[in-house]
Amino acid sequence: MEPVAGRAYGIADKVEAFVRETIIPFERDPRATSHGPSDELVMEMRARAREAGVLTPHILADGSHLTQRETAIVLQRSGLSPLGPLACNTMAPDEGNMFLLGKVATDEQKARFLGPLVSGEARSAFFMTEPAEENGAGSDPSMMMTTCVRDGNDWVINGRKKFITGADGAKVGIVMARSEDGACMFLTDLPDPAIRTVRVIDTIDNSMPGGHAVVDIVDLRVPASQMLGQSGEGFTYAQVRLSPARLSHCMRWHGVATRAQEIATDYANRRMAFGKALIDHEGVGFMLAENLIDLKQAELMIDWCASVLDTGSAGTIESSMAKASVSDALFRVADRCVQVMGGTGVTGDTIVEQAFREIRAFRIYDGPTEVHKWSLSKKIKRDWKAANA
Amino acid sequence: MEPVAGRAYGIADKVEAFVRETIIPFERDPRATSHGPSDELVMEMRARAREAGVLTPHILADGSHLTQRETAIVLQRSGLSPLGPLACNTMAPDEGNMFLLGKVATDEQKARFLGPLVSGEARSAFFMTEPAEENGAGSDPSMMMTTCVRDGNDWVINGRKKFITGADGAKVGIVMARSEDGACMFLTDLPDPAIRTVRVIDTIDNSMPGGHAVVDIVDLRVPASQMLGQSGEGFTYAQVRLSPARLSHCMRWHGVATRAQEIATDYANRRMAFGKALIDHEGVGFMLAENLIDLKQAELMIDWCASVLDTGSAGTIESSMAKASVSDALFRVADRCVQVMGGTGVTGDTIVEQAFREIRAFRIYDGPTEVHKWSLSKKIKRDWKAANA
Amino acid sequence: MEPVAGRAYGIADKVEAFVRETIIPFERDPRATSHGPSDELVMEMRARAREAGVLTPHILADGSHLTQRETAIVLQRSGLSPLGPLACNTMAPDEGNMFLLGKVATDEQKARFLGPLVSGEARSAFFMTEPAEENGAGSDPSMMMTTCVRDGNDWVINGRKKFITGADGAKVGIVMARSEDGACMFLTDLPDPAIRTVRVIDTIDNSMPGGHAVVDIVDLRVPASQMLGQSGEGFTYAQVRLSPARLSHCMRWHGVATRAQEIATDYANRRMAFGKALIDHEGVGFMLAENLIDLKQAELMIDWCASVLDTGSAGTIESSMAKASVSDALFRVADRCVQVMGGTGVTGDTIVEQAFREIRAFRIYDGPTEVHKWSLSKKIKRDWKAANA
Amino acid sequence: MEPVAGRAYGIADKVEAFVRETIIPFERDPRATSHGPSDELVMEMRARAREAGVLTPHILADGSHLTQRETAIVLQRSGLSPLGPLACNTMAPDEGNMFLLGKVATDEQKARFLGPLVSGEARSAFFMTEPAEENGAGSDPSMMMTTCVRDGNDWVINGRKKFITGADGAKVGIVMARSEDGACMFLTDLPDPAIRTVRVIDTIDNSMPGGHAVVDIVDLRVPASQMLGQSGEGFTYAQVRLSPARLSHCMRWHGVATRAQEIATDYANRRMAFGKALIDHEGVGFMLAENLIDLKQAELMIDWCASVLDTGSAGTIESSMAKASVSDALFRVADRCVQVMGGTGVTGDTIVEQAFREIRAFRIYDGPTEVHKWSLSKKIKRDWKAANA
Repeated sequence: MEPVAGRAYGIADKVEAFVRETIIPFERDPRATSHGPSDELVMEMRARAREAGVLTPHILADGSHLTQRETAIVLQRSGLSPLGPLACNTMAPDEGNMFLLGKVATDEQKARFLGPLVSGEARSAFFMTEPAEENGAGSDPSMMMTTCVRDGNDWVINGRKKFITGADGAKVGIVMARSEDGACMFLTDLPDPAIRTVRVIDTIDNSMPGGHAVVDIVDLRVPASQMLGQSGEGFTYAQVRLSPARLSHCMRWHGVATRAQEIATDYANRRMAFGKALIDHEGVGFMLAENLIDLKQAELMIDWCASVLDTGSAGTIESSMAKASVSDALFRVADRCVQVMGGTGVTGDTIVEQAFREIRAFRIYDGPTEVHKWSLSKKIKRDWKAANA
Repeated sequence: MEPVAGRAYGIADKVEAFVRETIIPFERDPRATSHGPSDELVMEMRARAREAGVLTPHILADGSHLTQRETAIVLQRSGLSPLGPLACNTMAPDEGNMFLLGKVATDEQKARFLGPLVSGEARSAFFMTEPAEENGAGSDPSMMMTTCVRDGNDWVINGRKKFITGADGAKVGIVMARSEDGACMFLTDLPDPAIRTVRVIDTIDNSMPGGHAVVDIVDLRVPASQMLGQSGEGFTYAQVRLSPARLSHCMRWHGVATRAQEIATDYANRRMAFGKALIDHEGVGFMLAENLIDLKQAELMIDWCASVLDTGSAGTIESSMAKASVSDALFRVADRCVQVMGGTGVTGDTIVEQAFREIRAFRIYDGPTEVHKWSLSKKIKRDWKAANA
Repeated sequence: MEPVAGRAYGIADKVEAFVRETIIPFERDPRATSHGPSDELVMEMRARAREAGVLTPHILADGSHLTQRETAIVLQRSGLSPLGPLACNTMAPDEGNMFLLGKVATDEQKARFLGPLVSGEARSAFFMTEPAEENGAGSDPSMMMTTCVRDGNDWVINGRKKFITGADGAKVGIVMARSEDGACMFLTDLPDPAIRTVRVIDTIDNSMPGGHAVVDIVDLRVPASQMLGQSGEGFTYAQVRLSPARLSHCMRWHGVATRAQEIATDYANRRMAFGKALIDHEGVGFMLAENLIDLKQAELMIDWCASVLDTGSAGTIESSMAKASVSDALFRVADRCVQVMGGTGVTGDTIVEQAFREIRAFRIYDGPTEVHKWSLSKKIKRDWKAANA
Repeated sequence: MEPVAGRAYGIADKVEAFVRETIIPFERDPRATSHGPSDELVMEMRARAREAGVLTPHILADGSHLTQRETAIVLQRSGLSPLGPLACNTMAPDEGNMFLLGKVATDEQKARFLGPLVSGEARSAFFMTEPAEENGAGSDPSMMMTTCVRDGNDWVINGRKKFITGADGAKVGIVMARSEDGACMFLTDLPDPAIRTVRVIDTIDNSMPGGHAVVDIVDLRVPASQMLGQSGEGFTYAQVRLSPARLSHCMRWHGVATRAQEIATDYANRRMAFGKALIDHEGVGFMLAENLIDLKQAELMIDWCASVLDTGSAGTIESSMAKASVSDALFRVADRCVQVMGGTGVTGDTIVEQAFREIRAFRIYDGPTEVHKWSLSKKIKRDWKAANA
């Protein structure tokens, strides 16, 4: 692997300073609710980020993106607060949506839908997942039940979507549905009366503005010009988005877990128990040591997977390996931080408790660990068959 | 071990039927807030329990308690809903407080303070833990900083307490403080203007009415007749309460984890993925199998520890072994249930998500796993020294 | 569960004293080779056991067996040395073979084949498992390829068997083969020229005399009177043997793991590192504490499963739960003991290293953990279907 | 990190081809005994390596070494057979000893002692560790009890050393002892009658020729010119050797674990159970998938630590992180391979069983995992103190 260009570190240092100095104080802001921070809070933080020159820091002025390895460095730093990615516009699902539009949208589509995202004025949502309880497309996207039918110059879309992060309050939607040709993707302005929020789900995490919604799409009419790419190619585009988006979660949560480790370390050095500082108890010190190792391994897996994506590979296998191992490792880190801090660890007095909940959810979204292991075992079998043909 | 008497099973079956039929529907009641169910909801459920003859089921009409092994069977069933112990009055900290008063209080104290607890009309709080950040008595009670000073016929108490479960709304308080003789315990009516709620802490769990509070005790004046037992004997009484209270948490959370397993099993049998029921995927089926084993082991550890307590032993070591292993095992169970249920697992749509959060907290309160391992290693050393003296 | 009768403790105490005083010194005997102790050594130790009145202690003078719960107590003690079960005649496969013959053999068969086993004069082998690499009956007995064909008054058996423990040196064989009716079992004197040892396999364990052999059975002729039970009922009889034999491994290895813990505890108390006794390092003390818990849980699982078997149940599910959890728990115990002892832990200077290797093998034989989890998940599914029919 | 130079891959490819084609067949050679391969076998394999141009492949013709990152690539490939490092002269302790002499020895010392090692004609031993049971220098080298006293132009050394790998049969010794100035190192020809093998220890591993010996050093007389560096600087030199030697174990065992994964994968694809190939059971496929991840993480940790060493840093912390995590990860890999292969996994029929035993030992030598975690927790504390001074 080539060394990462210095520019990434320059951006990352600015992002880190901004998050530490300006954003961390917002962590106690009451506008951060259990369905995610309010849009008012998000916009206030973004105004600060714009001022500090760290808004959408992974996309350069000419519209080009940092490489994935560079992005990793920047996004990890933005994650030093759960609010950092919101402030810097490096959060999910926008970061992945911007990446996708950058790759697939027409110039006209970019001007209308991508522009407001990059400038941080709008948020977006990605309407793919469907209700598992109705046997729709959960971890297995081949089960997609939402349909789109051509009607003159329009497409008409019907279906139900679930776990649509940020739908509530988003201005740009990317909707996935199935035509006769296969899967399709559409761009749409939000809100739209044809997309009805059934409910915003109570979930264990609460970092994402708008939370995670169930929506009914009823006769949503979209002009053909707002189809993203070609009819039937929807899964190809989902694939374009898949690995980088998966990996960018790893990056951000790595930042949060790093911060949790800082907080737990501080606690363990200050607090006494049974006659000495907590950290002088091996039972505590060893947990922090294990965290040090887990954080380093996670960082290396992210960097490695990013380097594969930077070659132009889809990186499906590599991002499965990274996602499964990083989400599990960061969860262990957060869990140990909670444990190190004892009673304080299970309170909202620090972000350690939130980190624990958020990363628990991360072990499931973008593919539960088991689905990734399943893919990996299939890959091992394919490779063996190829070698023994 | 003798077989458990049949009476316990009779009571337990009634409790289970009540919890399943009457209490589980309350799980979606909006009065169950993030600081615990409201007292209105608690009292409504208790009225139903009284009607059904399952209120305070572990204390018989003559005031005697079931044995610990019997209690285990009854409390596990009451735990089949997180609301069950509230409804049945088998919850913490009341169950432990009633046990303590039953053992130590004078007849007069019992009539005034224990009676309303047994009848389910009042809730109580146990004011022991102090703020770790001020190096007070957290897991290490020898660090107690709250003081009590004799003044005529009264005692005057000053200090700060933290993580006082259920303080908000309680009618009976047991307050621990340090006199010249050592630790003391006092009974007090609540609310009392000298006990001021600084804040109710946001915590990861939310099953306990009143939540967990920080309180300042400022010149709390208590008549000497409300001292529990003797001055300086407070830790002895805390010890009486310690093991049974610790174990009763194991009992209740065992019930909750059992229910989580039922929900996850149902989900895994109904939901399809990649062409077959989830449970037919070994990755899922094996998790449910591991839960089956963990639940059985936890049940056996509880029963074994209970049988030791029933001999009259303090059971300090045994309850450390039980608490450490059961809390960790039940957490693995809850974590696997979340994972089995995928996206649904991290939502509030079932109590699986709550079980996960509650049991995470349980790995810390009543002694973090590490403190118990520390005690056990000391015990191993003592035994070795005794054998090699 | 009823309390275990006192007689078992009386026997167990005698067994323990014998193993500690008489057998442990044999652990350094050079006749204990990498294919197991020589038969000369076995017979020498048995002579001592006979003298001490602890030979075949789980079978009473009248031929009756201790209950399974009683057996557990006795066999755990016999396991305090890896040589103990050989000395006391409580080892595999003989213990299981004696149990099976006691249940299924005719009086005549008992006199001829069971007698010398109970008296400790002979060893036996159970010819069931077949080579996995030829897709024979490994963990999946339905794949049995060895055949038996009636020829006049005899049966003629042909096939290849693998991992036949103790075949080399055994005097009694139980051979499993498939007739037109299904599986059959035959008793045979050993050695027999028709049963040819292809090789004794090098394996990670070395506690079993005769090791584990691959044998070819070529036109083995057995009189019909030596068929055990009925033609086609072989799997029924295997089932009779299955759970108790599985569980008796748990019992013996529990004893060995207990001894490993004693050795590691002694080491940790005597040896200094970084200025204090090893056990005073939490990193070490916590491992010993975890062992204490694992040993207790394993003991409780064994006792529980034994109590189920004592009701007359086949206990298939319960013994799967016990075997999977106990073998994994005891392996963790042995692994931690190795780790506590550092360099010494990986040497043959104590039996800790052997315990580690033996119990590693135990995680595989009598059903790898994964096969048991598979059975348990099927059971969970069946139960769900029954409840939701 | 800079990309690794192409030369390393060229060498590594040659080494891999050699190991796969020429050395793997030797794995069944009876000269590979339980105390390690005989020197005859080693020399025969080295002759082949010399022919193939892959002897001591990490040291170039001009005496310079590959960088650590390059070395990693080459040593991993040499490890594809447990015999590979012996054949290629990349094994411990010689690889580390050559590295040390290359850094510290005088030209004269190099010609006499280093030359025969690089040419593969001689083996060497490093006499540092002392018996823990006598409270000598085990994991804690500050406890060194072996002394050296100046006597005219000579030093006279006395003490006992333990776990001296390869001592039996070595021609070059590096002996560590304590003078008034502190620790010292000496070069010595072997055998020497003053260095007496007390015994070669039976250990769980058996890949190293000469095994691991206990030796008594009785009045060993060494000319002052054979002191390595300065008196009192012995720990400085040990430090020079420490991290690279530690890391080179990671490299070689990574190769062995990779091979174990190949063997288990092949087995899982060929063998049927319950109606389908083993790998099609998720219980098996997931284990292989976890191995894929663990192997990748271990590779990345090795590469990262090597890159730190290549900057000239002592890399103490980084090599602790790498050693602790890699040894544990590779053990998990080997353990899963054993489990995947069922009965075959615990036999000597493949090198999987040996890999399991060898890597178990590796979790202890060069610092047990716990010692590394201890160092890391001290480092975390130091860093915190520095930041909060």
